[in-house]
Amino acid sequence: MADVTASGTVLVDNIGELVTNDPSTGEGPLGIVRDAAVLVVDGVVTWVGARGAAPDADAAVVDAGGRAVLPGFVDSHGHLAFAGDRAEEFAARMSGQPYTAGGIASTVRATRAASDAELEANVVRLVAEARRQGTTTVECKSGYGLSVADEARSLVVASSHVDETTYLGAHVVPAEYADRRDEYVALVAGEMLDACAPHAGWVDVFCDRGAFDVDEAREVLAAGISRGLRPRIHANQLEAGGGVRLAVELGAASADHCTHLSDADVDALAGSGTVATLLPGAEFSTRSPYPDARRLLDAGITVALAADCNPGSSYTTSIPFCIAVAVREMRMTPSEAVWSATLGGARALRRDDVGHLGVGARGDLLVLDAPSHLHLAYRPGVPLVSAVYRRGLRAA
Amino acid sequence: MADVTASGTVLVDNIGELVTNDPSTGEGPLGIVRDAAVLVVDGVVTWVGARGAAPDADAAVVDAGGRAVLPGFVDSHGHLAFAGDRAEEFAARMSGQPYTAGGIASTVRATRAASDAELEANVVRLVAEARRQGTTTVECKSGYGLSVADEARSLVVASSHVDETTYLGAHVVPAEYADRRDEYVALVAGEMLDACAPHAGWVDVFCDRGAFDVDEAREVLAAGISRGLRPRIHANQLEAGGGVRLAVELGAASADHCTHLSDADVDALAGSGTVATLLPGAEFSTRSPYPDARRLLDAGITVALAADCNPGSSYTTSIPFCIAVAVREMRMTPSEAVWSATLGGARALRRDDVGHLGVGARGDLLVLDAPSHLHLAYRPGVPLVSAVYRRGLRAA
Repeated sequence: MADVTASGTVLVDNIGELVTNDPSTGEGPLGIVRDAAVLVVDGVVTWVGARGAAPDADAAVVDAGGRAVLPGFVDSHGHLAFAGDRAEEFAARMSGQPYTAGGIASTVRATRAASDAELEANVVRLVAEARRQGTTTVECKSGYGLSVADEARSLVVASSHVDETTYLGAHVVPAEYADRRDEYVALVAGEMLDACAPHAGWVDVFCDRGAFDVDEAREVLAAGISRGLRPRIHANQLEAGGGVRLAVELGAASADHCTHLSDADVDALAGSGTVATLLPGAEFSTRSPYPDARRLLDAGITVALAADCNPGSSYTTSIPFCIAVAVREMRMTPSEAVWSATLGGARALRRDDVGHLGVGARGDLLVLDAPSHLHLAYRPGVPLVSAVYRRGLRAA
Repeated sequence: MADVTASGTVLVDNIGELVTNDPSTGEGPLGIVRDAAVLVVDGVVTWVGARGAAPDADAAVVDAGGRAVLPGFVDSHGHLAFAGDRAEEFAARMSGQPYTAGGIASTVRATRAASDAELEANVVRLVAEARRQGTTTVECKSGYGLSVADEARSLVVASSHVDETTYLGAHVVPAEYADRRDEYVALVAGEMLDACAPHAGWVDVFCDRGAFDVDEAREVLAAGISRGLRPRIHANQLEAGGGVRLAVELGAASADHCTHLSDADVDALAGSGTVATLLPGAEFSTRSPYPDARRLLDAGITVALAADCNPGSSYTTSIPFCIAVAVREMRMTPSEAVWSATLGGARALRRDDVGHLGVGARGDLLVLDAPSHLHLAYRPGVPLVSAVYRRGLRAA
């Protein structure tokens, strides 16, 4: 396959199965076009049609060899700005110890001790790893600094390497504030927010048992909104608390995790514009029960799938893995899981330009070493992504 | 990393964590040596020791960069000689249809219709895919031909590309024998065996509901044994039948699947030399309950992990994926799962030369892009295998 390294005009031709996620362009909810081609001009899709029928253009041609081409994955939930790893904690947990939010503290210590260059290298490493597996849009949160300076620098180092940044000063209460949590919440909603808001597009709170309660979360999110940040929430991972309903109340783009939901939570999501972002890597690596995607889909709720890459509860960057687990465990069909990992992720980030391959979309796409998108779930664990293009340029 | 392409002397140096699986060489059941080096001469390990302490040798040096090095995976159970795929059947099953052994018939039709070259290309493709994920020893069964000629050619095309071949004429009763199953069993134990025995080292039977009963299995296996083949059995995947006890009765090297076990089955395995080979990919892709590895390990039974690559129930070649699922679902620790996918697989094939890196072992090893073997389970879905050597030669 040609290695396109310059901007300009790129024709991806000889596509056996093209997933556009645009029902007006192709068949079914995934907008599938068979024997297709896609033209990308200066990073944007300008034409989609039948193989061999592309408008004349002085295009660099990428021959997909009859394989499947999909929109690049949109990973709307990641924690990439950290240092160290917690492999030993993971191994201990797999020998029977339960997962709690408290393990985050060890990553906070390592992150604070790391240089800016070390933090940046970690982000770069994980973004590159995600790219090789087909992810072309990456969101990254702070949340392992938990001091004014460490939260701000986490966002600064991430911002040049990812598409969306999220301020998560309210990840957990750090040890030094254990007896003064009100002061920490005030810091997060005050001075820390001042330092972080210029480097973030979103504000997030881990609203759950062991982290922050609904009133604390509301205070932080309201402060962020007042500074022009848009809200999203870690909600209902560990118990059916008030996080999801707070997300809906605030018009958050997404409620993330949604592992434990009451009927009232499902009703609230169904009547809202809030996406339910499911993170099966976290349930996989903590041996927790999985969220029920079918229940959400049947209620008409928009579902996104994301990797939740972090060193404690879900140290994966692999969206193909998340798709396979979502199908196995969350009662999604393979096609639903692919949609949720592409256009679903875009909806969770309120992005219109990614997650699909209609005309006007960003030229972000992946070539599967397989004839169909179904193989992402059918062939679990196999690295099937053979080429990745971002804005029409070869990215992996 | 140097690309070693010729035989001779290879020193893999600067290994942060070396898994030898030899408790006399290193620490614990995995025989771990830190800051290690391995010398491979003409394809065989001749020395293992501390980094920088290797005996003088005119060796090509591979710098592992402080990362983890493990024995190559030994995948003791695969069905690679087939044509076609069953992605649509998989997608339908994920929408609620149950898995039965009957789906095999569609692969039999495609396999019979394929040319020798097509069959061989499929084996080559899957072996290469497995290599890239760290597998250095591959077993391959027939079983999608189910005629004298198609079983024999399946073994012939596989035999140049894999380490162990297994005759599985008794996979299912083909459609044309549906009303004459006794005749089919006689064929498998007679003329078909005559044609296949020269090309196989093992004889196997799918002894389960919908396939072959214990008496039929015993007849086929006894015939194979009389021709010098060694027995192994697909046992107790779909129900707690008599397959495992038959395996023990016949001194089979392995009983494969072991998903549904009675106490009598566990007792029989515990008193035997038969390995329990667990195939979590099959449970993953059929939404079936997983076997309980802990129960087997606690009873002192040797457990192997294998991929069971086949187009119906487990279309994966990824041993790292199987390790991650085994830890999540089967109550194995990460270290136990790594042992079972290396030395456990070797035991299931009764091979002394692979699955470990003690002196005298075959120079089959993989370099992980991670500091520890724990990362294979800790980082699910991430392609961490960065280099693979087989007999001291770069293989992926």
